[in-house]
Amino acid sequence: MRFEVVTLFPELIASHMSFSIMKRANDSGIIDVITHNPRNYTLDKHKKVDDTPYGGGAGMVLMPQPYVDCYNSILKTKNSITLMMTPQGEPFSDKLSDELSSYQQIIILCGHYEGFDERIRDIIKPREISIGDYVLTGGELPALCIIDSISRKIEGTLGKIESAHDDSFTEGLLEYPQYTKPRIYQGLKVPEVLLNGNHKMIEEFRFQQKLLRTKNKRPDLYEKYINKDNPSAT
Amino acid sequence: MRFEVVTLFPELIASHMSFSIMKRANDSGIIDVITHNPRNYTLDKHKKVDDTPYGGGAGMVLMPQPYVDCYNSILKTKNSITLMMTPQGEPFSDKLSDELSSYQQIIILCGHYEGFDERIRDIIKPREISIGDYVLTGGELPALCIIDSISRKIEGTLGKIESAHDDSFTEGLLEYPQYTKPRIYQGLKVPEVLLNGNHKMIEEFRFQQKLLRTKNKRPDLYEKYINKDNPSAT
Repeated sequence: MRFEVVTLFPELIASHMSFSIMKRANDSGIIDVITHNPRNYTLDKHKKVDDTPYGGGAGMVLMPQPYVDCYNSILKTKNSITLMMTPQGEPFSDKLSDELSSYQQIIILCGHYEGFDERIRDIIKPREISIGDYVLTGGELPALCIIDSISRKIEGTLGKIESAHDDSFTEGLLEYPQYTKPRIYQGLKVPEVLLNGNHKMIEEFRFQQKLLRTKNKRPDLYEKYINKDNPSAT
Repeated sequence: MRFEVVTLFPELIASHMSFSIMKRANDSGIIDVITHNPRNYTLDKHKKVDDTPYGGGAGMVLMPQPYVDCYNSILKTKNSITLMMTPQGEPFSDKLSDELSSYQQIIILCGHYEGFDERIRDIIKPREISIGDYVLTGGELPALCIIDSISRKIEGTLGKIESAHDDSFTEGLLEYPQYTKPRIYQGLKVPEVLLNGNHKMIEEFRFQQKLLRTKNKRPDLYEKYINKDNPSAT
């Protein structure tokens, strides 16, 4: 899978890819992360990539020319999709991550400052994605979240010791509580059922914990789970 | 504001803070980002920080001892809060970011692998936060999103050319479209109203665009806005 990130701050993407699991996935060729900087494409004599907004207001707006020309320079493969990171996009989710993991090439447009000149949207027509209802200084962290979320679903990214199995959201429920050694820590014991080796009982315990936890922590997800998918779970 | 991040991958935090606006905020002393590695606190003779889950299953679970001892080593200031980054937490939002920006010290616990031994939650009792309904390889990107979102609200982080004003979500609506030079690009014109200098008309145009855009792109937010806050906007 090839990620191509259009960004004014390529170092924010590159530095993150130099560590941990993402580095391993990148080094092993499972994913390929490339950056493209609109600053290298500006025709402005002062190398500008942004300017003040028409109609007034604080902040700087990304000019269409450097951005569109930079985007056009990227060679699109057959199975390619273009995303724009923006708080105005559709909310990113585990389901959307699954869907995107089927593409061969994902181009990600990152904004900065006050955002994109509207005509960048009009011309490129990207799928607009938001990672949550909050605002960040740029699209680079959201792009990295998307790359991370999708990459970990690709076989080989997570080693034997890790797993994308039984994660939160894979069934629309939060994950069950996890316990490891020691059996007793500061007087707190690992639940007995997890120690007895009865797999059926363990499975049932974990499923009930998932239901309970989702009901308590995310009643919105619980309602969705009960009503739409699994009326018998009540 | 002081952020203290408990993480097995401090380089993921440190590298991001070396660039762009976050570097400037860090250098100028507006924010202070410090990392703490549980690996330095493990009493295990093999320096382990994780182990297999009781009850079986893939992945490794973070052991309570290194994590809790690392957390306890952090000197808490008076106006301090502890967050845990987890897909099971309450959804992070612009409103929550506002709330958190009033703290003097924010301690952020990052997980990795299959997550935290449940007793880490039981003992530390952090406020659990999720940046969205998807799973990532670790809590570091979510921690950076939180640091970024909160920092940009602190005076001095964004320079004169940037602004946290008129962002998406500040009134519960998405942002209006932005335009900058040139007036015509690839045949697409900047809306006339933005060029005529009539501030009242510009304000009205932008407000209508915010409503329209929110209605089209995020009907859930639009409903909330209309029903709860501004019944007259219909």
